[in-house]
Amino acid sequence: MIRRMTLSLALLLGMQALDAQAASEPIQPITPAKVKDAGLAELGKKLYFDTRLSKSGFISCNSCHNLSLGGTDNLKTSIGHNWQKGPINAPTVLNSSMNLAQFWDGRAKDLKAQAGGPIANPGEMAFTHELAVEVLQSIPGYVAEFKKVFGNDKVTIDEVTKAIAAFEETLVTPNSRFDKWLKGDKKALTKAELAGYALFKDSGCTGCHNGAAVGGNSFQKMGVVEAYKASSPAEGRVGVTKDEADRFNFKVPTLRNVELTYPYFHDGEAATLKQAVDTMGRIQLGRQFTDDENGKIVAFLKSLTGDQPNFKLPILPPSSDATPRPVPFDK
Amino acid sequence: MIRRMTLSLALLLGMQALDAQAASEPIQPITPAKVKDAGLAELGKKLYFDTRLSKSGFISCNSCHNLSLGGTDNLKTSIGHNWQKGPINAPTVLNSSMNLAQFWDGRAKDLKAQAGGPIANPGEMAFTHELAVEVLQSIPGYVAEFKKVFGNDKVTIDEVTKAIAAFEETLVTPNSRFDKWLKGDKKALTKAELAGYALFKDSGCTGCHNGAAVGGNSFQKMGVVEAYKASSPAEGRVGVTKDEADRFNFKVPTLRNVELTYPYFHDGEAATLKQAVDTMGRIQLGRQFTDDENGKIVAFLKSLTGDQPNFKLPILPPSSDATPRPVPFDK
Repeated sequence: MIRRMTLSLALLLGMQALDAQAASEPIQPITPAKVKDAGLAELGKKLYFDTRLSKSGFISCNSCHNLSLGGTDNLKTSIGHNWQKGPINAPTVLNSSMNLAQFWDGRAKDLKAQAGGPIANPGEMAFTHELAVEVLQSIPGYVAEFKKVFGNDKVTIDEVTKAIAAFEETLVTPNSRFDKWLKGDKKALTKAELAGYALFKDSGCTGCHNGAAVGGNSFQKMGVVEAYKASSPAEGRVGVTKDEADRFNFKVPTLRNVELTYPYFHDGEAATLKQAVDTMGRIQLGRQFTDDENGKIVAFLKSLTGDQPNFKLPILPPSSDATPRPVPFDK
Repeated sequence: MIRRMTLSLALLLGMQALDAQAASEPIQPITPAKVKDAGLAELGKKLYFDTRLSKSGFISCNSCHNLSLGGTDNLKTSIGHNWQKGPINAPTVLNSSMNLAQFWDGRAKDLKAQAGGPIANPGEMAFTHELAVEVLQSIPGYVAEFKKVFGNDKVTIDEVTKAIAAFEETLVTPNSRFDKWLKGDKKALTKAELAGYALFKDSGCTGCHNGAAVGGNSFQKMGVVEAYKASSPAEGRVGVTKDEADRFNFKVPTLRNVELTYPYFHDGEAATLKQAVDTMGRIQLGRQFTDDENGKIVAFLKSLTGDQPNFKLPILPPSSDATPRPVPFDK
């Protein structure tokens, strides 16, 4: 009995010590997702993979936010309907629920508001919300599942985006080696990775890349010390706020799983982590990292890769004879 | 002891009875896939989902043979690199291991020979075998997995296509309601479905659509009784054999999971099963099915939907700094 109490006390003290350590760091461990409504998230998963939400019947959410590839497409800018070249790099969907807002310019306040965007964007999925709903309403398997989840027979775009957002909220990536270290496993990181983390903090990177998502929680100017010559016409936050002070301000991207989410920056111009770290050091911090320093920071960044999505490939309900057919080619 | 023997005897006789019934039908049940080399199939699964086997980094095997959608893209003809319109309907990959040859014209003798085709086809993935191998060779996660599976450090296109084929061999769909009926479960089918099956046999459909895959085991002329006006320029088997007798001969498609693999025919011109059954009746058998007959045959065909692929979404190893980057836009 006394032994058990001693053990409990030791565990308790140990946990307090861990909490204290984690709390003193600018980066916090990721908490695994708590799924509030499993049926809703499951429906959202199907919709996320469903190419029938696009005009062509070829593009789904997963086309550009590919969950086999770190929740992005690993392209500089994405490919949209009719092979249109997108204006901006597709940000990862992993841990996107932690962002203060969605899109690089934060024009959508949350995942639900974001989910409707690409469906109706002529340069992306090129559909309309009305047609997407008409397609889903014609598919008996979906109608039954929407009814089970929402309790009514009529599919709405509000329900569609709510379900997709609920699925996306499950896409968090805990248990990275860095989180294990944060939680007290001193062997989880190598010396080089620890040195990289020290440099990351001392150089000021954590000024913007902090919190559980190591970013995603503020808008910042791209090019503080030195101007950045972007290959993208994107103007950033000013387009949303109309405030000139926000010109070229972008949402700070999460660095979780950054090993997987190349290429980097809103224009996708940094092909490798080495390039990204070098550019960030120069234009944001006025610091030229040596090759050795760069290598250590990159080593630290690679320790941020967490548990990737772990679920079965969804099988989608078939269209019915009444389902409007996709229109991949206009002519 | 005697009771146990009696039971065993009854089971044995029961099984013989089942075998006898199944054997007397023109359609045989599907046997679940026996995975010979799990590591090889697992590697093939990753490759099947990997967009880096295409020039654009956007198209994978799964883009046109989408395992969430019955192993096809549900488009009349597929979308290739630079949004090129394909010449022919993408056949399902499900149960394709049972085909006597691959592609509509049978130009590939097996799945391994097929797998290399789309990668290097300028209208599909638009890559080359050399570049695809160069990409894989630059990805440490793949190099390690190829080494584990094949025992050497050098990735070859032969290994790539072997692995993809091994994965595709796992994509069989047993346990359809029709198979349950074939195996003796008399309640597995409705009266309408049974009437549809009787019509399917009596009308001569099983002349071509037979065996475990309900097709896939012969080449036949499209338009035996009445000419078929195709929207596709495809000439069929003659392109392979150079024998004029093979003009407009195509591989008979499997009807397994046909509920999911719309639209139908090599040109994808039949949007619904109803249309497909009507056209087949007229041009192949010289028979105009009534609406009632058509409905029964369609009901039977929908009983051929079996267990769909059941595996976790593969997570792909990240590119390295040395990995050649995709080229989605030529200009």
